[in-house]
Amino acid sequence: MIMLFFMNKNIDEKTGEDGRADVVTLGRDAPLRLDSGEEISAFDVAYKSWGRLNEDRSNVVLVCHALTGDHYVRGISPITGKRGWWENMVGPGKPVDTDLYFVLCINVLGSCAGTVGPASLNPATGKPYGLDFPVITIGDMVRAQAMLLDYLKIETLFSVIGGSMGGMQALQWAADYPERVKTAIAIATTWRHSAQNIAFHEVGRQAIMADANWKGGRYLDREEQPHAGLAVARMAAHITYMSESGLTSRFGRSLQDRDKLAFGFDADFQIESYLRHQGISFVDRFDANSYLYITRAMDYYDLSADHDGVLAKVFQGTKTRFCVLSFTSDWLYTTEESRHIARSLNAIGARVSFADIDMDKGHDSFLLDCAEMDGIVRGFLNSEAEMMGVQGS
Amino acid sequence: MIMLFFMNKNIDEKTGEDGRADVVTLGRDAPLRLDSGEEISAFDVAYKSWGRLNEDRSNVVLVCHALTGDHYVRGISPITGKRGWWENMVGPGKPVDTDLYFVLCINVLGSCAGTVGPASLNPATGKPYGLDFPVITIGDMVRAQAMLLDYLKIETLFSVIGGSMGGMQALQWAADYPERVKTAIAIATTWRHSAQNIAFHEVGRQAIMADANWKGGRYLDREEQPHAGLAVARMAAHITYMSESGLTSRFGRSLQDRDKLAFGFDADFQIESYLRHQGISFVDRFDANSYLYITRAMDYYDLSADHDGVLAKVFQGTKTRFCVLSFTSDWLYTTEESRHIARSLNAIGARVSFADIDMDKGHDSFLLDCAEMDGIVRGFLNSEAEMMGVQGS
Repeated sequence: MIMLFFMNKNIDEKTGEDGRADVVTLGRDAPLRLDSGEEISAFDVAYKSWGRLNEDRSNVVLVCHALTGDHYVRGISPITGKRGWWENMVGPGKPVDTDLYFVLCINVLGSCAGTVGPASLNPATGKPYGLDFPVITIGDMVRAQAMLLDYLKIETLFSVIGGSMGGMQALQWAADYPERVKTAIAIATTWRHSAQNIAFHEVGRQAIMADANWKGGRYLDREEQPHAGLAVARMAAHITYMSESGLTSRFGRSLQDRDKLAFGFDADFQIESYLRHQGISFVDRFDANSYLYITRAMDYYDLSADHDGVLAKVFQGTKTRFCVLSFTSDWLYTTEESRHIARSLNAIGARVSFADIDMDKGHDSFLLDCAEMDGIVRGFLNSEAEMMGVQGS
Repeated sequence: MIMLFFMNKNIDEKTGEDGRADVVTLGRDAPLRLDSGEEISAFDVAYKSWGRLNEDRSNVVLVCHALTGDHYVRGISPITGKRGWWENMVGPGKPVDTDLYFVLCINVLGSCAGTVGPASLNPATGKPYGLDFPVITIGDMVRAQAMLLDYLKIETLFSVIGGSMGGMQALQWAADYPERVKTAIAIATTWRHSAQNIAFHEVGRQAIMADANWKGGRYLDREEQPHAGLAVARMAAHITYMSESGLTSRFGRSLQDRDKLAFGFDADFQIESYLRHQGISFVDRFDANSYLYITRAMDYYDLSADHDGVLAKVFQGTKTRFCVLSFTSDWLYTTEESRHIARSLNAIGARVSFADIDMDKGHDSFLLDCAEMDGIVRGFLNSEAEMMGVQGS
């Protein structure tokens, strides 16, 4: 569906604290050509926006979500029934200030929250794509986002910001559309997936595929779903999102609802109960095939692949200004990786701020309340906005 | 079966480079009382020995194996068809020198390589125990080993040595039988399983239990086995045995048998292919229920639990001499944990040597060729043997 009323009218209206969600169908005339060589046409893209677009359309901030995220950055998500995933970062008076900026978040390609993915209906068969959906990349996600921005007649992004896979998209945006990206903020992320990163994702994918209910990806029209495998995948991944010290201080060896060991295989320890809960609650909101596709996109991510492995070459001549943030306890995408991004940008004379934030909550720190992160993002955006003369509407 | 001929004769004979394996039935008269409160009687214990027992039976070194190990330290294992798992450490002229020491390795309780475990026949039913096998602890494993030593009329251990779960047993031996243990060598191990350690094991257990063929542990008399779940468990665990830098230097983002990304879910990357191989080859040699039981024993491991969480108190007054070794790149059982063990021993005036070995192969370093580890173990054993007047036969 084409939301003409949105284009003509509502984009200029304040969207309120909870923002507004929309789905548009893109690629009707010109399909999206994927890195795989395949094409998709007439595909849905879901997104949400907050704040008001200014006169010269110069105040757009694109927020990119992570692996299991969606476009419900703020407000109650109809998918989870919970508050949005980055309310501490985005909103009125927040570091990404919706009183000043027009903020967009677009559900990524391959996801299951509104944008086309393996759970969507394949127009050729009238059934869900399953594994007939083409394998996608972070670059494909970004190109789909660019198509939506074209549709919305938004030429430039004042900023693109994201953590984890969101940070990968922010860097990909800056690499592929240097003229369209004024500033990019990459948090708790990397420029290429490492062998260990791939290994953890492969465990998750194998857990899903090992589930007898997965059935080669053709489970959506069945009663039995590959929930057990997907829950195991989530559990394995979740460990990588937390730090050893964070787990120790939060759970340690505390027992769950008991005084002593039960000598069985129920959840004796709180950490077991917590992990099981993470797994079980995840399957209600996420599609197993989407998990395969998006982890695959992350594993394929290597910005330097076409530049002899030299990241600096990717950004040669860029005018984009970068802010790179890492967390000391993040062992999934480490400080060293963020430092490499910052140094690579430095080496070619790009403007880059880098901070390694001392926080013991591991990779997921970027989703949590963190005054230092908030202060840096706020300061970076506001000073760049001032220098560039970007104003709210 | 009672190997009387062994007791009377062969124990004094040189057992050759490949050693000799035996199984004895223990607990016929007095059962083994487990930490859970349950008892097992008339249970098999499998072990292997190398070298020759000296006159005063003072040259015994007990080698303790890790989670998925067995008693085939040297020689061709009939289980794997491969060379033993610690040939670089144990043998004629090796750091644990079988020309000098009488070396024993005992398959742990709960395992599936000869000692009683969940795959053994339950005499009460004539069928495999499955989950009717009692939950065991590292302490139970050690008590079963002590029963075997009693049976073999070996009162004292010149040394008990092990890496990973083997190191846990070495420390447990020193804690529970201080008079019987002259020296203990604990490599790449910990004094209690951390929340992160438990979390990774819980993922493995859930992967097994999620396998539709697991069937509550009652799969051994069926054709379909929970191989897929067990393989996923092994894959997840295997990542924790290697370091990020080790994975990067060995695999990086190298592709497997292809020039470019295949845009599918086969193993594009070498690390994926390697991990899948680790998973698939594991299921041929290990029982899924044993994996549940032994990981549970490790999770329950906390030497300080009955001592107000103060490890030093465990070893108060000990005369055992300790050697504690860690590897810089081991993030499963970290240098900090080994240092804590060494410091705790130091604090109560126990004799302890501690070394943190610079090696980038992660936790599995203890299984690999490592001149520094070899040198330290050899030096520690030989100097202690000299001080104690221990000689070969």
